[in-house]
Amino acid sequence: MSGINGKTAPDDSTAIDEKGIFQEADVTGSEIRYINRSMCIVGLDYVGLPLAVEFGKKMQVTGYDISKERIKQLKEGHDYTGEVSDSELRMVKIDFTFDPSAISKSNFVIVAVPTPIDEGKKPDLNILKKAAETVDRNLSKGSIIVFESTVYPRVTEDICVPIIEWESGFQYMKDFKVGYPPERINPGDKEHTITGIVKVVSGCDEDSLETIVEVYGSIIKAGVYKAPSIKVAEAAKVIENIQRDINIALMNELKMIFDKIGIETEEVLKAAKTKWNFLNFHPGLVGGHCISVDPYYLAHMATAAGHYPEMILAGRWINDEMAGYGTSRIIKDMIRNDLPIKGARVLVLGAAFKPDVKDLRNSKVEDSVSIRENSCLAIRG
Amino acid sequence: MSGINGKTAPDDSTAIDEKGIFQEADVTGSEIRYINRSMCIVGLDYVGLPLAVEFGKKMQVTGYDISKERIKQLKEGHDYTGEVSDSELRMVKIDFTFDPSAISKSNFVIVAVPTPIDEGKKPDLNILKKAAETVDRNLSKGSIIVFESTVYPRVTEDICVPIIEWESGFQYMKDFKVGYPPERINPGDKEHTITGIVKVVSGCDEDSLETIVEVYGSIIKAGVYKAPSIKVAEAAKVIENIQRDINIALMNELKMIFDKIGIETEEVLKAAKTKWNFLNFHPGLVGGHCISVDPYYLAHMATAAGHYPEMILAGRWINDEMAGYGTSRIIKDMIRNDLPIKGARVLVLGAAFKPDVKDLRNSKVEDSVSIRENSCLAIRG
Repeated sequence: MSGINGKTAPDDSTAIDEKGIFQEADVTGSEIRYINRSMCIVGLDYVGLPLAVEFGKKMQVTGYDISKERIKQLKEGHDYTGEVSDSELRMVKIDFTFDPSAISKSNFVIVAVPTPIDEGKKPDLNILKKAAETVDRNLSKGSIIVFESTVYPRVTEDICVPIIEWESGFQYMKDFKVGYPPERINPGDKEHTITGIVKVVSGCDEDSLETIVEVYGSIIKAGVYKAPSIKVAEAAKVIENIQRDINIALMNELKMIFDKIGIETEEVLKAAKTKWNFLNFHPGLVGGHCISVDPYYLAHMATAAGHYPEMILAGRWINDEMAGYGTSRIIKDMIRNDLPIKGARVLVLGAAFKPDVKDLRNSKVEDSVSIRENSCLAIRG
Repeated sequence: MSGINGKTAPDDSTAIDEKGIFQEADVTGSEIRYINRSMCIVGLDYVGLPLAVEFGKKMQVTGYDISKERIKQLKEGHDYTGEVSDSELRMVKIDFTFDPSAISKSNFVIVAVPTPIDEGKKPDLNILKKAAETVDRNLSKGSIIVFESTVYPRVTEDICVPIIEWESGFQYMKDFKVGYPPERINPGDKEHTITGIVKVVSGCDEDSLETIVEVYGSIIKAGVYKAPSIKVAEAAKVIENIQRDINIALMNELKMIFDKIGIETEEVLKAAKTKWNFLNFHPGLVGGHCISVDPYYLAHMATAAGHYPEMILAGRWINDEMAGYGTSRIIKDMIRNDLPIKGARVLVLGAAFKPDVKDLRNSKVEDSVSIRENSCLAIRG
C-alpha cells in the first residue's frame, strides 16, 4: 500500500472537466459514476494559501479563512506572508471568502490551520478543533476532509473525526472520510517549494487514499508517498522537525561546554566536518512555528502514553534556553569591557526566526531583546 | 593555519632515505640539518596495528605493545582483530616488540592505546597514563609524541605532557613536542579505510604541526586537515561519535513512544525519509568502544567545567537502556504467547556490537543475554 507514486497524470477513472473541476470516478460494482469534486481550503496562512494557489491552477478552489482582513487582502491580490507573490496570486482564480457556508459547496476539504503551543508549552488544539467544528456545520455528504496541520498521532481520528460527526450527524466512513497529508512547507525556501517536495499522504481507507493521491498528485511534481495509515503519517510529520531540533540542541549544548573551557565551537565543527558522516549542524536560536513547537506535541502524547521523552525535552530546553544564554554572554562581555549595561544602546540585526521570512512570531530574537526607547532595531528580510 | 592539505608528497626539506627512514629538515637559521626520524607505535590494537602497517610501507616502524601474547601473534604474522590480513601483515617489515626500551630508538612516537570507561561510566585514563609513563622512561630528546586515543579536551597537554616530563626530566616544547592526530578508524568498514579518511592533525606549535602533517601526509590519501590547536582536535574527535549517539538515541526514544501506541517505527521512518533533509538513522543497540564510550568522556569534562550535559547524557541513558528494553519486550511477547520463561531456549543471532567485527567487548548483546547451559548462542561474523 505504501510507496512513492511519482506519476501525476490522472488515470482513466479520473479527469478534470472543462470547468476545471476535479472529477473522480466512483467505481461501485460495474457502475461508474462521476462525482464533481470541488475543493475548499480552510485556513489561508503559510500553508493554506500556497496550496490554494497550486490547486487553483488545476481546479476550482474556494479559499476560506476566518479573518476578514486576510480575505480582503487576498481579494486585493496581496499576501502579507510573502510566500505567494502578488502577480502569482492574481494569475489564479480562487474564491476567497470568510463565509463558512462556502465549505458546503465542496466535497474535498483541506484543513490547514496552525497548531501552536500554549504558554505552558502544551499543544493548543483549539484552532484545529474550531476548524473541525466549522467543517462539521458546513459539510456535504460524501466529502473527504484532509488535515495538513502538524499534530501528534491519533489526533485526526480521535479528536477531529468525532467533532465532524457531532452536529452534522454524519457517520464516519459512511458519510464522510478523512485523510492526513501533512504539510512540509519550508517558509522562505525558494528551492524546496510545495510542488518540489515529496508529499506524504494517508487516508482512512483504500478508496479515500486513492482520491487523495490523485488530488495531490495533480500538483506535486516530486511524487506522492502513500503512508500505510493516518497515524503513521501523523507520526512521520511530527518527528521530522524533532530530529532537526535535537541536532541543533546538541550543537548548542556543545557550544555551552566549549565556551566554558575556551574552545571556539566553530573551529571544532570545521574539523569534525572533515569526517565523511559528520552532520552539518551549528549552534543557534531555534524559533518559528515548526521546529520549536512540534517536539512539544509528541512530548505531550508520549507523556500521556507513559513514556517520559527525555531526549526530546532535553533538546527543547536547551534550545529554548539559548536566547537567554546568548544575551547573558553579551552582558558579561560588556561588563568585562567596562560598558554600561543600563541605558546601553543595542543594535539588533535580524528579527525573524530565520533569514528571508517575514514572520516575526515565535522568533527567539524576541526572547533576546526587550525593545526600549533607546535601542535601535534593524529588521532584516 | 587550518585547511585540508591533500598533498602527500614530501617537499624539498623532507625525504625518505634509502633505508626507508623518514627524515625531516630541521631549519635553524641558515643551517639545514637532517634528523633521522624513525617511528614507534605504542599500542597495537584496532588503531595502532593498521597504522603501523600503513607506515611500515613507507618507513622503518617499531611496534610496541605491553602484551607478550599479542607481540608473539604479530611476529607470527597474525592479527586476531581481523583488521589486517595475514598476507598484508607479512608484506610489511615492522619491528614488533614488548620491550619498552625500543621506544628510545625512535623520535616520532604514536600512542594508540584504548581509553575506556570504568564501571561507573567515568573516563578511565589509566592505560593512557601508563603509556605516557612508558614513553617518559624511554624517550629520546627531540622527539615528537602524538596521541591517537580519544580523550576529552586538554588531556594531551594537561595530563599526558606532565607525565612525560616527570622521570625524563625533559622540558616540554624544548626537549619534546606533542601533537594530537585522532584516530578515525571504523572497525569492519572496508570502504572507509585508514588511508581513505581525512586525517585531523594538530601540534603544540607550527613546527611540530608541519612534521606531523608530513608524517601522516605520507600515508593518508584523503588529505590531512590541520586543526588550529590540540584542544580543538581533541574536541572535534570526541563530538563525532556523540552526534551519532544522540541521533540513534532519538530513534530509540521514538521507538519506545511508538511502541506504546501501536505504531510501527520503521513505517514512520520510511515516510519521514521522503523529506529531503531527514537523516537516515534507526533504532538499535549502541555498543563498541567508540560511540558508547566517547560521550561519557565529554560529559565528564563538561560536568567538571560546570555544565551538566543534559542532551549527551539523555542520549547515553536511552541507548544504554535499549538492551533491557528489547529483552523485556521479548519476555512480554513470550508471556502473551504462553511460552515458559524459565528454562526457555533462546537463539541469539549476532554477538558483536556491529556486523563483520570480531570484537565482542562492549557489545550490548552481552547485556541482553545471560548465556546459560540451555541457551544456544550463534555468533555471526
